[in-house]
Amino acid sequence: MASDPFKPWRVDGSKLRLGDVDPRARPFAGSSRERDDARLLELANEVDRLQDLLHANGQADPAKGPKLLLVLQGMDTSGKDGTARAVLTRCSPLGVRVAAFKAPSEIERAHDFLWRVHAVVPRSGEIVVFNRSHYEDVLVPVVEGWIDAREQQRRLDHINAFEELLAQTGTTILKCFLHISRDEQKERLQARLDDPAKRWKFQPGDLDARAKWSDYQSAYETALAATSTKSARWHIVPADSKSQRNLMIASLVVQALRAMKLEPPKPDFDPATIHIE
Amino acid sequence: MASDPFKPWRVDGSKLRLGDVDPRARPFAGSSRERDDARLLELANEVDRLQDLLHANGQADPAKGPKLLLVLQGMDTSGKDGTARAVLTRCSPLGVRVAAFKAPSEIERAHDFLWRVHAVVPRSGEIVVFNRSHYEDVLVPVVEGWIDAREQQRRLDHINAFEELLAQTGTTILKCFLHISRDEQKERLQARLDDPAKRWKFQPGDLDARAKWSDYQSAYETALAATSTKSARWHIVPADSKSQRNLMIASLVVQALRAMKLEPPKPDFDPATIHIE
Repeated sequence: MASDPFKPWRVDGSKLRLGDVDPRARPFAGSSRERDDARLLELANEVDRLQDLLHANGQADPAKGPKLLLVLQGMDTSGKDGTARAVLTRCSPLGVRVAAFKAPSEIERAHDFLWRVHAVVPRSGEIVVFNRSHYEDVLVPVVEGWIDAREQQRRLDHINAFEELLAQTGTTILKCFLHISRDEQKERLQARLDDPAKRWKFQPGDLDARAKWSDYQSAYETALAATSTKSARWHIVPADSKSQRNLMIASLVVQALRAMKLEPPKPDFDPATIHIE
Repeated sequence: MASDPFKPWRVDGSKLRLGDVDPRARPFAGSSRERDDARLLELANEVDRLQDLLHANGQADPAKGPKLLLVLQGMDTSGKDGTARAVLTRCSPLGVRVAAFKAPSEIERAHDFLWRVHAVVPRSGEIVVFNRSHYEDVLVPVVEGWIDAREQQRRLDHINAFEELLAQTGTTILKCFLHISRDEQKERLQARLDDPAKRWKFQPGDLDARAKWSDYQSAYETALAATSTKSARWHIVPADSKSQRNLMIASLVVQALRAMKLEPPKPDFDPATIHIE
């Protein structure tokens, strides 16, 4: 798309420097929190309308219907949960699903790293959000030194092949890196700690990843640059502002659904011949 | 609960006659469509608030956290999809899930009838809605004569044992039969047929079940009476009015969540000792 307003935020080249992207950037100019929220609601309603069409098309063609996969990655508190809620807030739970990936269980570790991911990809007509994903397997193990550069590259290649399989079988893949600053993370972690209702979200272990901030940024740079393909593009979403973050991702989802050019499916019978007793 | 306002709609005895329950009944007196919708939104917000607490408790205790299973059964067009959307409309998709059961696939038929159902029951902290369920296996096969009375009874016993397992391991089970009249179904089917945007929901095969209306009502009577246990109670929800149906089921969900007496989980560390660099 020549006139894609989100082009500046797409990962295109083979190099990526997250330090060059400002987490405080506001892609939607002239905005205010209130205006952003109103615009977000419009977008969420549009996501709902398009998701109904997606669902209808999936029911009409279960074997080859269209599918949407939204991958959300980002450091702790970058807003993965909040984004999923904001973007899908108007949708029926019938056709949308969130898959959250935590540290792998014993049975998951006993398989290849894409096994648990493949099991929950969208079916025809479905929107699925990955809250974390297979990308965790080229982040934590890299930062912790559990795998070497060769294995890292192998995994990146496997990821590209896997996503190509999904894309070729009708899945639109939209990948967003929620880019927050270290300062913003500090405020959000502190807020979780201070609020008894939010405290359950805080794990003392969260501070370990924070202590390795630049290692994680670097592992992200490698992973995102290596896997931002034509069929599965990465976007860097400035995420210090929650409303701007939501607005950008909702816009990307609407853009992706519109690009499917969905129409109400045609029935395989002649409605005029049906008589209901 | 002595003062349970929904007692009249609970299936309690061993006999049930659906003909005695008016599908046009309006459990919420003095209501109008507008007032119902406003009240529904309040309830949906309360479901959201309680679901956040449920999610938090599930995260804090993954092995034994609380769970909610809402089973929706009813004839075609009785409003199973619409109910799921209405009740969960304010919830984050992170902690709610809809599992829809269609005619079993080959691999599903190659297992016992509870296999595919067991695979998708709620995990700790989750609300799951069953859009149709294992009850289909004591309806269609009974009406079509594929199984005899002994096998029917065996399946009902298996269902009770299965639901008891779920209940004893922390699952609150709420079962609703969406009770519509044959006339109302006719109108709704016709509406699907007439509206090109809704036509994909119509299958000519839907008319087969309609033609066997009283056989289905009778199979429902047997199944509901046999499986309305203390741990997994059935409710007959008058469903000719969509807004009254939504209101009643949302109220039942709120009632079930409140009965869990959920509190924000206590952290297993002392927040005062944490310092964020």
